[in-house]
Amino acid sequence: MTTPPAASTQNYVGVEVSGATLRAALVSARGEVLGRREAALERDGVAAQVARVAAELRDASEGAGAVSGIGIGLPGLVNPATGNVVISTDLPALARGDLRTEVEKATGLRALLENDANAAAYGEYVAGAGRGSRHMFYITIGLGIGGAFIFDGRIWRGASGLAGEFGHITIDPEGEECACGNTGCLETVASAPNIVRRTHDRLFRDNTSSLSRLALNRDFTASDIAREATAGDDFARLMIERTGRYIGTGIAAVINLLSVERIVLGGGVMEAGALILDPIIREAGRRSFQPCFEATQIVAASLGPDAVPVGAALLARAAA
Amino acid sequence: MTTPPAASTQNYVGVEVSGATLRAALVSARGEVLGRREAALERDGVAAQVARVAAELRDASEGAGAVSGIGIGLPGLVNPATGNVVISTDLPALARGDLRTEVEKATGLRALLENDANAAAYGEYVAGAGRGSRHMFYITIGLGIGGAFIFDGRIWRGASGLAGEFGHITIDPEGEECACGNTGCLETVASAPNIVRRTHDRLFRDNTSSLSRLALNRDFTASDIAREATAGDDFARLMIERTGRYIGTGIAAVINLLSVERIVLGGGVMEAGALILDPIIREAGRRSFQPCFEATQIVAASLGPDAVPVGAALLARAAA
Repeated sequence: MTTPPAASTQNYVGVEVSGATLRAALVSARGEVLGRREAALERDGVAAQVARVAAELRDASEGAGAVSGIGIGLPGLVNPATGNVVISTDLPALARGDLRTEVEKATGLRALLENDANAAAYGEYVAGAGRGSRHMFYITIGLGIGGAFIFDGRIWRGASGLAGEFGHITIDPEGEECACGNTGCLETVASAPNIVRRTHDRLFRDNTSSLSRLALNRDFTASDIAREATAGDDFARLMIERTGRYIGTGIAAVINLLSVERIVLGGGVMEAGALILDPIIREAGRRSFQPCFEATQIVAASLGPDAVPVGAALLARAAA
Repeated sequence: MTTPPAASTQNYVGVEVSGATLRAALVSARGEVLGRREAALERDGVAAQVARVAAELRDASEGAGAVSGIGIGLPGLVNPATGNVVISTDLPALARGDLRTEVEKATGLRALLENDANAAAYGEYVAGAGRGSRHMFYITIGLGIGGAFIFDGRIWRGASGLAGEFGHITIDPEGEECACGNTGCLETVASAPNIVRRTHDRLFRDNTSSLSRLALNRDFTASDIAREATAGDDFARLMIERTGRYIGTGIAAVINLLSVERIVLGGGVMEAGALILDPIIREAGRRSFQPCFEATQIVAASLGPDAVPVGAALLARAAA
């Protein structure tokens, strides 16, 4: 037996760029996180900031091995031909630049850009709650609701490059108007801001809720609702449970259509744990074809805030 | 240049077994139909009937080339490991026998069994309205509503082997009860029997409709509704248009989730032509994410009753 030479230990830097924050991790080829960095995003110099943070991570992990590439997950659509950002609603400046090329120049490493939901999906598939499945649907529930399919290790992009728009499935044909132009999209009731809106709308009916007391002092967030539900507040539990049922209705469509092996749920709203996961599973079971439902595992994501950096790093590895 | 030797001309027999009928075709390797046979299904001797009809087709097409295999599409689930039928709700006897092996013994040819919706999807993909697309969703609307995805030339089966259950997508969470246990499945409003039911339920409100006069003499069918709509009856048009909107709502979920390149619609209900296709496309457009919708073509199937035999024959070719 021989020890593999040190040069074969390849690590990757994974970066998550969001509207306010840059979060980076040094990630091994197997998806282990060897180091982390987080900073306020420098919107005017994203490439330079990525290069600086990547160098810091490398320097802080001397002996962990070489850095072989950089993956960046961001809120936008990446042109597969150029590898650069085409559209970014949160960070429109990214679409005007040539971020991939700039990062490569600033670091001397190969860089890869990917939509953040796709990157998180890939991270969970390889190194998180999707590990061991052949096909998986990843759902992220936060400010918006996104999704991504991974079939046999590859992100499914579809004809538009935008597949996985789980948040815009119609779950109530006569429901609320959505920014997308439709009515009754899942996102109109189950995204974090809409959970807050629904809760506000009904709070006056139940002013014994701990959320009523909270609302006297400040606006509450979806995290507050999840926390009060966990602490036992009945009204908060009801709102979380109803949210789970909406999400489960959408998941039933995924199960009926594709019979995917595993569905992984991430994003801040999943902080409510079993209080939201149980009604999701119950409603998905009620609304999907039984043999399809029985062949699908519905689980919570396991990488937490590492999902995008880890997935982006592993995509950089896969592209190398 | 040399003429290819005659021995390289390979044809396949494709068979559709349904509850009442056996329909067969001799099909070239490119999907052209060289001959057809149709007969009442002999339920007690399906394998022998298939062998007899295959021999008739071969004899009637002397000079067309050898028959290299047989594909059979049927209303059931096929075990991929054995190639035999596991479940058939319409023809339970098929699941007790060993149909694939029996057909091989009776014909001396390799035989392949496939679910009928999958076979029709494959036929349309290779030789019909799906030709030229990379990925396609096929929908068949008749007694029930079925579907099948073809991704890069392969039928998508999913973890259960039953993917494509388009008819059981929830399109109205508070809708009618479905045999599957859910409420508001697409099938509860848009299958042929349910179009008839909805039309009956509302007919008394509009007794100027030509369907009212028809109903005095006999029960009418979904085909009657399609025909009266085509002939200009306003009430029949309304029922067909509303059906199209239900189907379009379900299609929007497929577009949002997968951004498939093409969606092909077959089955008896599509006899209404543009009267149903136009509202389908309109509603799908209204309820799907615009860039995904724009990348999807929604078209009527083109193989008609040949879809299952042609698809089954081409699957036999692909497996050879």
